[in-house]
Amino acid sequence: MNTIRAGVYGGSGYAGLDLVEILAAHPQVDLRFATSNTYAGDTAPGTDLRYLPAAEVCPGDADVIFLALPHKASAVMAKRGIEAGVKVVDLSADLRLDTPEAYEASYHSPHPHPELLPAPYGLPEINRAQLQGVDVVATPGCYPTTTLLGLYPLLQFGALRSDAPIFVDAKSGVTGAGRKPSLTTHFAEVYSNLIPYKTGRAHRHVGELEQEARKLSDAIGPVIFCPHLLPVDRGLMSSIYVSLNDSMSSDQTQAAYLEVYGGEALVDVLPLGEQATLKQAVKTNKCVISITPVLDRYAHITSVTDNLRKGAASQAVQNMNLMFGLDETLGLL
Amino acid sequence: MNTIRAGVYGGSGYAGLDLVEILAAHPQVDLRFATSNTYAGDTAPGTDLRYLPAAEVCPGDADVIFLALPHKASAVMAKRGIEAGVKVVDLSADLRLDTPEAYEASYHSPHPHPELLPAPYGLPEINRAQLQGVDVVATPGCYPTTTLLGLYPLLQFGALRSDAPIFVDAKSGVTGAGRKPSLTTHFAEVYSNLIPYKTGRAHRHVGELEQEARKLSDAIGPVIFCPHLLPVDRGLMSSIYVSLNDSMSSDQTQAAYLEVYGGEALVDVLPLGEQATLKQAVKTNKCVISITPVLDRYAHITSVTDNLRKGAASQAVQNMNLMFGLDETLGLL
Amino acid sequence: MNTIRAGVYGGSGYAGLDLVEILAAHPQVDLRFATSNTYAGDTAPGTDLRYLPAAEVCPGDADVIFLALPHKASAVMAKRGIEAGVKVVDLSADLRLDTPEAYEASYHSPHPHPELLPAPYGLPEINRAQLQGVDVVATPGCYPTTTLLGLYPLLQFGALRSDAPIFVDAKSGVTGAGRKPSLTTHFAEVYSNLIPYKTGRAHRHVGELEQEARKLSDAIGPVIFCPHLLPVDRGLMSSIYVSLNDSMSSDQTQAAYLEVYGGEALVDVLPLGEQATLKQAVKTNKCVISITPVLDRYAHITSVTDNLRKGAASQAVQNMNLMFGLDETLGLL
Amino acid sequence: MNTIRAGVYGGSGYAGLDLVEILAAHPQVDLRFATSNTYAGDTAPGTDLRYLPAAEVCPGDADVIFLALPHKASAVMAKRGIEAGVKVVDLSADLRLDTPEAYEASYHSPHPHPELLPAPYGLPEINRAQLQGVDVVATPGCYPTTTLLGLYPLLQFGALRSDAPIFVDAKSGVTGAGRKPSLTTHFAEVYSNLIPYKTGRAHRHVGELEQEARKLSDAIGPVIFCPHLLPVDRGLMSSIYVSLNDSMSSDQTQAAYLEVYGGEALVDVLPLGEQATLKQAVKTNKCVISITPVLDRYAHITSVTDNLRKGAASQAVQNMNLMFGLDETLGLL
Repeated sequence: MNTIRAGVYGGSGYAGLDLVEILAAHPQVDLRFATSNTYAGDTAPGTDLRYLPAAEVCPGDADVIFLALPHKASAVMAKRGIEAGVKVVDLSADLRLDTPEAYEASYHSPHPHPELLPAPYGLPEINRAQLQGVDVVATPGCYPTTTLLGLYPLLQFGALRSDAPIFVDAKSGVTGAGRKPSLTTHFAEVYSNLIPYKTGRAHRHVGELEQEARKLSDAIGPVIFCPHLLPVDRGLMSSIYVSLNDSMSSDQTQAAYLEVYGGEALVDVLPLGEQATLKQAVKTNKCVISITPVLDRYAHITSVTDNLRKGAASQAVQNMNLMFGLDETLGLL
Repeated sequence: MNTIRAGVYGGSGYAGLDLVEILAAHPQVDLRFATSNTYAGDTAPGTDLRYLPAAEVCPGDADVIFLALPHKASAVMAKRGIEAGVKVVDLSADLRLDTPEAYEASYHSPHPHPELLPAPYGLPEINRAQLQGVDVVATPGCYPTTTLLGLYPLLQFGALRSDAPIFVDAKSGVTGAGRKPSLTTHFAEVYSNLIPYKTGRAHRHVGELEQEARKLSDAIGPVIFCPHLLPVDRGLMSSIYVSLNDSMSSDQTQAAYLEVYGGEALVDVLPLGEQATLKQAVKTNKCVISITPVLDRYAHITSVTDNLRKGAASQAVQNMNLMFGLDETLGLL
Repeated sequence: MNTIRAGVYGGSGYAGLDLVEILAAHPQVDLRFATSNTYAGDTAPGTDLRYLPAAEVCPGDADVIFLALPHKASAVMAKRGIEAGVKVVDLSADLRLDTPEAYEASYHSPHPHPELLPAPYGLPEINRAQLQGVDVVATPGCYPTTTLLGLYPLLQFGALRSDAPIFVDAKSGVTGAGRKPSLTTHFAEVYSNLIPYKTGRAHRHVGELEQEARKLSDAIGPVIFCPHLLPVDRGLMSSIYVSLNDSMSSDQTQAAYLEVYGGEALVDVLPLGEQATLKQAVKTNKCVISITPVLDRYAHITSVTDNLRKGAASQAVQNMNLMFGLDETLGLL
Repeated sequence: MNTIRAGVYGGSGYAGLDLVEILAAHPQVDLRFATSNTYAGDTAPGTDLRYLPAAEVCPGDADVIFLALPHKASAVMAKRGIEAGVKVVDLSADLRLDTPEAYEASYHSPHPHPELLPAPYGLPEINRAQLQGVDVVATPGCYPTTTLLGLYPLLQFGALRSDAPIFVDAKSGVTGAGRKPSLTTHFAEVYSNLIPYKTGRAHRHVGELEQEARKLSDAIGPVIFCPHLLPVDRGLMSSIYVSLNDSMSSDQTQAAYLEVYGGEALVDVLPLGEQATLKQAVKTNKCVISITPVLDRYAHITSVTDNLRKGAASQAVQNMNLMFGLDETLGLL
């Protein structure tokens, strides 16, 4: 197998930094460049590369480019990558929604390149077959990844009541808010605090989450989603509260998760009675899940990832592995 | 008005420390003693008192005793206080449940003094009338206080669907776990972590929470309650997800909260669109609440307290004020 | 005594917020305005005031103005306040250095109003006599306050070797870096970290520190000063390492501190063997000091303040009390 | 090269956990057992091994045993290992001091096996030649490792004044205090705090530190050492303040460090002007050092390690590599 030449756009943001770290250690990858307009000239941590301004690199110098860019900028670069004949792993939101209309509904501005939609949604544990060998993949957001993996077995078995919402109380470390300084991410504002934001259905990830959930099970209720900013740097927990229909009682849920995830290397289902904690996933490339049956027809699921790994960078590399026909977990275990 | 002589049993635990601080500054209180078996001889912080072993003080030296003791020990001391003719503010769980059977169901051991049950449940914003001038009050737990205040207007208006659960995702600072060292509270285990525990309906506060909620509105579904240990020292957030019945749409909820809490000095309802954050309540004696209407018939309520204040010590003092006919907020604003 | 009308310029920075909180609760102060260009229109926390843009208030509407402004802006407003005949408590660096030359050496730009220098240096425990009744006071920086109080008894007794440096290893919470967002104060950069900065003699507070130390004892060595950014929101610790001359052995140091600070309400000297910790000072208006004698002629002094209180806002109010002939600790205990 | 069979005694303490993690991933090691009396039966994280009680394993089942045990217990097991003919890497204090008298002076109790002293002191960057192929190594403490590496070039060049102390202000994450629960390590006591302890010359590591420093340069002053408990889980910073003699001016120090550490894979000397921060070393196996020249004859050195890695577990493995003639950094880069 030839080495894959890879380039990272947006290599100095938090997801970009993890991406650079993972790619630099990947046995089949030759990391050729990492861009950063803000830190151009500095050494990319953990490598011998110096960050270059995006304008000074050429997508065609790589076999695959990773886009850890702001939305809208990402679509523009994806387009350029496709035109240059290189594979594209997008970590932004630009390729996640299937239609320009859905994009505009969530992002309140027209899609820069509607012709790129739809793109395969890069959540391998759910969509693996659609990712093998393709040229473009949209890597999901951290909240949808963690929440969809937490719901997947119940969706696949059609076990959720159609007339009850799926309640998701989510908590994310501060790197999820990006590296650009703002009062929101100021240490003294976050420290010792816990801050709900964009509650209800206001968060931009809700559209993507419902889109993918409904592909698995059309007869589900709405997702009610409340994210919180947690005073830690990394880690994301989705606490999911579901109502089960007649097809599955709560004491059957654990078995369903074990069945669905039994062969997955990057999803750990904990034994009944144990609870998934944030630190079990932080700095790993895994999603860790625990299930608590409640009464006869309810369940509480805790799904945890590192928002910068399985929620972003390592999942992007997992997708790259599939796109190039490599072992899906290469460089990730 | 004569000065009230007060004594604190269990004055060196975290709730006891806050109680000592509040009572020492209370304009109508003369703090006569604070007990601590572990720290006997040390100065109680913020006072000139030295901690005494519990065996060396006499309840009768005070007009009111506060019991910040472990459950079971607390009931024994409550009994002694009553026999000595002093008023008793219990901060333990021993007097919160109405029957010995309910106590045994939650605490898995017989109640030491079943004749003390039921006692008035000291949540003044809900039970004010039953607390004025009485001799014994059970101060509620931190989770029930925060959750019941977050639900109270909906319960009072009978606005909840009887066939849907009330989902409560709660998060507490580490002082809620007490001062006794254990691996659970070891810095290195909690730091950078988020830990669900006693999920579903397993937490001992669920019994007390449902008991009081059902007094307000019998036709409600079960409470599904998941507490988490948050990597901060203080503060408690209950994130409550409810399904509304036909009597109230989600856009009417804010008005209901404003109506119910309009005159309350120790409950702040935030304007629509603002979110209650942990730090808004920490080191205050208040409960801070925000409401997010979701779709037509759902709502997300965030209710926040300082677990050691409105969730324990300051609420105990609020109860004392009522028991002695003082202004309810004396020493608390 | 008439009420003092006070105004705060820069009321939404971290020192300004504490200043507003303290003044709003001060029994002799009527807080008339608080300015904030960034938060104009918002309510100043803990008050009924709305922030006004600085341009919309008039210094003459107050009897005293507090300047919690960036340096250079502060001198301009100090000048205006003096011209308007109101008393000025400056919290910036603009009035701390005695000469324009010294200012320019530390701040690398000409002093905006050299005619204002020198101003009384508002460290009451050291300079009390020079602060009573005056019209303008320069409130010291957080590092100099904490360090000078930690050194004062040794300086006063002339106990330091003239041929050895004073080594100061200092640690400050992040609010010391101000509220303006930057990568330096980004949560994810500070969390779990400890960051030395401006080490050696590069920090701008060194000039002020040496100026005041030399007024007390001319025969001292240079100050070698290394500040660190600590992953907490509040609190400042100066760890001071000194070499004693023949006039005092290390076992005499504790007595010297007790003698000098015996009557001070806002300085606590801990008993020998106890160590001052950050939390002992946080959210108080005090400086807490502990001394460790080492061998015969060395001592390690730990001096702790809340950088926003005794290191800024509460010391400013202490100065105001002196300027108006009030009890120095009014509103501060 | 044959695989080395390794066993870990004390595999569930914080150093033991890192040791297990590093050994499990080491390409030449077959981890045969990890003991834990407290967690016997649980799976050792990151492995398929179950912890065994120490009494159920036999040192002779391994080629090398690592002792992450309390002092005194460790010497007993070291003795047994030696008698069983296996190599011993001790992480406790028991073999670090050269004489039983020195041990008793620091640990206030007789050495359990004085015949084991002296043992080679396992700080490879300084003592490499004495560690190759030997059977027993004492791995240094976290404070001495970090401080000695921070001082080594100056000691080697004899650049320190003999009549001035070496001041060391050290800060350690909470894992340095061990995993056994105590009030000292209770989350709520440490959080938002900074706590000096065992200041002056009281810490037990001072003896070991001076012993090794004097082997390198006899003409040095005393070490004045003040450790602090930092509110983070991992990482150790030694801030070192030195006075230089006539042989070296401060502007020559950087070159001395570069010369001494130029070939070291596990020590990074930062460029002049950059400061070593805690996070640069955490979760790495390196020591990171920065130097600030101050005036003509002083220097401030910041030396940082992960207290559980280069300060304990990874240094133990580095020693093992030398004992078995492997590449010193195998499994560590």
